[in-house]
Amino acid sequence: MVTSGAVGVGRQRLRYRKLVNSSFADLQKPQVELDGKACASVGQSGLMALYDTLFSQLDVTSSQLLVTDSDFKDPDFRMQLSQTVNTLLALRVIPVFNENDAISTRKAPYEDSFGIFWDNDSLAALLALELKADLLVLLSDVEGLYSGPPGEPHSKLIHTYVKERHQSEITFGDKSRVGRGGMTAKVKAAVYAAYAGIPVVITSGFTTDSITKVLKGERVGTLFHQDASKWMLLGEDGAHNMAVSARECSRRLQTVSSEARKKILLDIADALEANEELIRTENEADVAAAQQAEYEKSLISRLTLKPGKISSLANSIRILADMEDPIYRVLKRTELAEGIILEKTSCPLGVLLIVFESRPDALVQIASLAIRSGNGLLLKGGKEAMRSNAILHKVITGAIPDFIGQKLIGLVTSRDEIPDLLKLDDVIDLVIPRGSNKLVDQIKESTKIPVLGHADGICHVYVDKSADMEMAKHIVLDAKIDYPAACNAMETLLIHKDLLKTEGLNDLIVELKSEGVALFGGPRASLEFDIPEAPLLHHEYNSMACTVEVVDDIHAAIDHIHHHGSAHTDCIIAKDLEAAEIFLHQVDSAAVFYNASTRFCDGARFGLGAEVGISTSRIHARGPVGVEGLLTTRWILKGNGQIVDGDKGVVYTHRNLPV
Amino acid sequence: MVTSGAVGVGRQRLRYRKLVNSSFADLQKPQVELDGKACASVGQSGLMALYDTLFSQLDVTSSQLLVTDSDFKDPDFRMQLSQTVNTLLALRVIPVFNENDAISTRKAPYEDSFGIFWDNDSLAALLALELKADLLVLLSDVEGLYSGPPGEPHSKLIHTYVKERHQSEITFGDKSRVGRGGMTAKVKAAVYAAYAGIPVVITSGFTTDSITKVLKGERVGTLFHQDASKWMLLGEDGAHNMAVSARECSRRLQTVSSEARKKILLDIADALEANEELIRTENEADVAAAQQAEYEKSLISRLTLKPGKISSLANSIRILADMEDPIYRVLKRTELAEGIILEKTSCPLGVLLIVFESRPDALVQIASLAIRSGNGLLLKGGKEAMRSNAILHKVITGAIPDFIGQKLIGLVTSRDEIPDLLKLDDVIDLVIPRGSNKLVDQIKESTKIPVLGHADGICHVYVDKSADMEMAKHIVLDAKIDYPAACNAMETLLIHKDLLKTEGLNDLIVELKSEGVALFGGPRASLEFDIPEAPLLHHEYNSMACTVEVVDDIHAAIDHIHHHGSAHTDCIIAKDLEAAEIFLHQVDSAAVFYNASTRFCDGARFGLGAEVGISTSRIHARGPVGVEGLLTTRWILKGNGQIVDGDKGVVYTHRNLPV
Repeated sequence: MVTSGAVGVGRQRLRYRKLVNSSFADLQKPQVELDGKACASVGQSGLMALYDTLFSQLDVTSSQLLVTDSDFKDPDFRMQLSQTVNTLLALRVIPVFNENDAISTRKAPYEDSFGIFWDNDSLAALLALELKADLLVLLSDVEGLYSGPPGEPHSKLIHTYVKERHQSEITFGDKSRVGRGGMTAKVKAAVYAAYAGIPVVITSGFTTDSITKVLKGERVGTLFHQDASKWMLLGEDGAHNMAVSARECSRRLQTVSSEARKKILLDIADALEANEELIRTENEADVAAAQQAEYEKSLISRLTLKPGKISSLANSIRILADMEDPIYRVLKRTELAEGIILEKTSCPLGVLLIVFESRPDALVQIASLAIRSGNGLLLKGGKEAMRSNAILHKVITGAIPDFIGQKLIGLVTSRDEIPDLLKLDDVIDLVIPRGSNKLVDQIKESTKIPVLGHADGICHVYVDKSADMEMAKHIVLDAKIDYPAACNAMETLLIHKDLLKTEGLNDLIVELKSEGVALFGGPRASLEFDIPEAPLLHHEYNSMACTVEVVDDIHAAIDHIHHHGSAHTDCIIAKDLEAAEIFLHQVDSAAVFYNASTRFCDGARFGLGAEVGISTSRIHARGPVGVEGLLTTRWILKGNGQIVDGDKGVVYTHRNLPV
Repeated sequence: MVTSGAVGVGRQRLRYRKLVNSSFADLQKPQVELDGKACASVGQSGLMALYDTLFSQLDVTSSQLLVTDSDFKDPDFRMQLSQTVNTLLALRVIPVFNENDAISTRKAPYEDSFGIFWDNDSLAALLALELKADLLVLLSDVEGLYSGPPGEPHSKLIHTYVKERHQSEITFGDKSRVGRGGMTAKVKAAVYAAYAGIPVVITSGFTTDSITKVLKGERVGTLFHQDASKWMLLGEDGAHNMAVSARECSRRLQTVSSEARKKILLDIADALEANEELIRTENEADVAAAQQAEYEKSLISRLTLKPGKISSLANSIRILADMEDPIYRVLKRTELAEGIILEKTSCPLGVLLIVFESRPDALVQIASLAIRSGNGLLLKGGKEAMRSNAILHKVITGAIPDFIGQKLIGLVTSRDEIPDLLKLDDVIDLVIPRGSNKLVDQIKESTKIPVLGHADGICHVYVDKSADMEMAKHIVLDAKIDYPAACNAMETLLIHKDLLKTEGLNDLIVELKSEGVALFGGPRASLEFDIPEAPLLHHEYNSMACTVEVVDDIHAAIDHIHHHGSAHTDCIIAKDLEAAEIFLHQVDSAAVFYNASTRFCDGARFGLGAEVGISTSRIHARGPVGVEGLLTTRWILKGNGQIVDGDKGVVYTHRNLPV
């Protein structure tokens, strides 16, 4: 351990001594600043007493080692120092180093080009080398090295220092760019030690357990390592570079003709079929590994590319290729004034990040959608599909011509990169998580990039008193049983109170039970039907189970849905058209259905073509989202020299023109 | 100060003692847990030694006061305790209290219904009362009291404890809801002291400077105060309640007819005119105060409601009232299969939060837009317009009928509430900041709610080598001079290199200078034109100044815009149609113009009616945003009993129907 603080402790004590020994007349004179060496001399013993007390609480003994710069000029000293330290460590005694300031003949504590060390940071780096330390931790008053002054909103903590990239900023850049003064010295010491072979972490001395966190390998502070430049492709640099490359390639993709984008898709379809055997081999390896690891059956089934899947994927890409080009379409054309035409056109969002689980076919679908819509793409698949994803990615990017660049579609292979990617709100435009609620929730919590998707799918079916009970039975069963794990499954059945004790309702309940659906009740239904109470009314079972509750009327049903729902898909079954209208008008969900199964809430069934996901967000896209969720708009205005000049000369017509 | 820790320190020491005194045979026997009282006895002196060392670093003396429960039963003790403590404090000595565990006859350290205190939290509360403390700070290992287990994503720190609201959760709720065990005791002690008149803050003992922060009145930890319930309308509860009320009212607003919404707008217009005198009086008071405070002239000018402004505002509301209802319009109608009709309809976003500066007329415009589009609204204006905003809010909400509720539009009066509002991503759907870049930036940095707006407006005009230089001069001057502080002002002028040394360009530069525009150059232009170098190429002047740079060709111009721009509005001036097409196609900004001034980028000039703002986000709405930026969509599906049943029986037609 290398410590500072002796001068500070000593100054405090000496001021007190001086005061006690002063006459009132002395105090009238100008006060001379206390001598630093005297302070160090007084303070060092106080400082060590403090360490001794603190360490003794842990039954650890500390020892004091005061060194000066000139000591290190003696090779015998260096050898002996190692021996002393090793002896202390063998006895589990902590050596506490400090510069012997009271004795040292150096005047200023800053860099001395003739010195071997010149402050406690350089002393620490020197000792780390001398003593062949495994790791050097430098504690600061900030979290680590920042890209700009810490505390400014755009400054980011640099997790891994890469000499080639960061050195110029620090050595030649504006000094304030590396934060408070002390950081420059720390970075210098860290670079020195790291490139001599000792890894260094600069982290905060104020954060609880920061040293323990570093030792556990947690991602805190800034790491300096001589191999860091080799890791450039990983970590925040890697993530950033990947996203920037995807953006650059996507801009080239956008400049080519619609035909050229179509051709890429057709080439990908051909490449997939040509490499079918290879893809299946890799996929079988993934499946075998998953079986050995005893993953759930449903996961293995989603992981497996069944026979015929490759050609069906290739065919769906060919259909996408033949689709009308979704970008650069004029959505609206207006004449603003004589000779000024304004067009609102569709254009790609930019760079998409898709995080998906298990299904390797999702990679193919999403990649082709991205190309069709002119977007760059970063893909992160589940590790269980690692080999399948790698080969699919290779085959697909292999079909992208060089003048666009294969980096159009990046494959993120390590889970560790996700946090870095989620920080890139300046380069990534949309995140689409496809997977469990937990995955979606985690991503939503941890990024500022807009997220398209839904965490919960708590769909309600409300059976009105006017319902055709035979229809209700059909719809309710389909909404629950057809595919219980899907997000459009009914999770809560709401029943108008007038239906209680009717034959139709009894029949419905019996049928649900006999199909194997476990019923849980809200406060009223659990009494009425003698079923266990549901733990929460806002609950997604994702299985053959659902909540049942009794409501007084349609307004109570709507309130229940607003209170406990997830604004995904909610359905009314009724013959009463007035009730239906109230429900359709007032239920504030992405999709509201009348006399039809919640299952229809699906991109393919809605006729949107490929489905990007179902969004419960109210912004950008809502409900099942097709390719239009990957697009934004751009306003293009063509004039012939018009100016505004305070609107004096312009006669606005605002005439809509055909598109 | 009340401290724990004696038992811990003592146990450590006694274990060592015991080990030293053990034979190897002793160590084979089962080890008996050390006696707590013995540990306390040993540890207390070590604990005090530690405090003494730490305080002595600050030249402060500490003193030990060990008390037991039974001491407090003696009234003489209580009086004498106060005297002792006051004597110590007068000498600037810190009394350090602890329960005299070694002596106390109580067995368990938990609540004892006969005890006067039962742990250090209740001791602290008791002492705070006895000694008439100004404030009690309880230090915990978490930031304060959370609404659920700390660390879970949905748990929120409660900044102000309101007994009426939080008590039931804590006393009767699931114990884990208040976090780790110790918190229950702290809350109990805090409630006891607070309702006896001593304010209490529970905060983290691990956070740097947490006590100093509390003393400075910073917003850390959880505050307990006997008047907290009176503050219910402020703080996080107030913000949340306000937003929830706005949502409830907006749902009622959505259920009424389009005619009813229209009538509200007309009533508001009438009410504004009827109260014109009152409004002007309040506005004059704001203006007078601003003049006295010597605010900038431009601010005072924006603050002033000029004569005729009220009736012009009233008239624009009447125009809005007559506008086609923007909500519940069918945007798309599809027959999915025989008898299943799907409609995509427009609907309100929900609750909007608008943060605006100075202009009180913005309040009127935004409130009427919100009503027209069926949204709830929270408004936060600048404090310089406080009285104007208050009266306008009162007049407007006074015209909202009771069956909808005046809380449809909430006026936030204190800046302190903004952070609370920005946290409500579950109730507020969109934030629209209208004000300085700094305001927009701060809001974007501190919320998960989507933000509509733009931080920077760094618009470029690129003058191609093919440009008509007379046209270029007109457009460039208009783009810079017409209104230099607006976001659609040109900030950077890019010039094709072939134009250097031409008469047309010289003329343009001379004209800019003679109009008083200060020119700064990029690396090339600063040499060419002998002008100072621009500090940054990404820079918004917002004044009579701009950056000039020379580029090799159109591709270099596009690269420059992508690198240094803000994707707001960029313009090309050229006769070469091919160059124009490349520019319009490739420049990835919200608005891209050809041969027209950047000034046209404006909601009114675009013919969008009222402008909500200009968005540089790529999501939801981009460029000038009219009322459609306040809308989302809802999918409405009507069937007659259809189910999916694995798509076996459904024949999808996906036929587009007229809307």
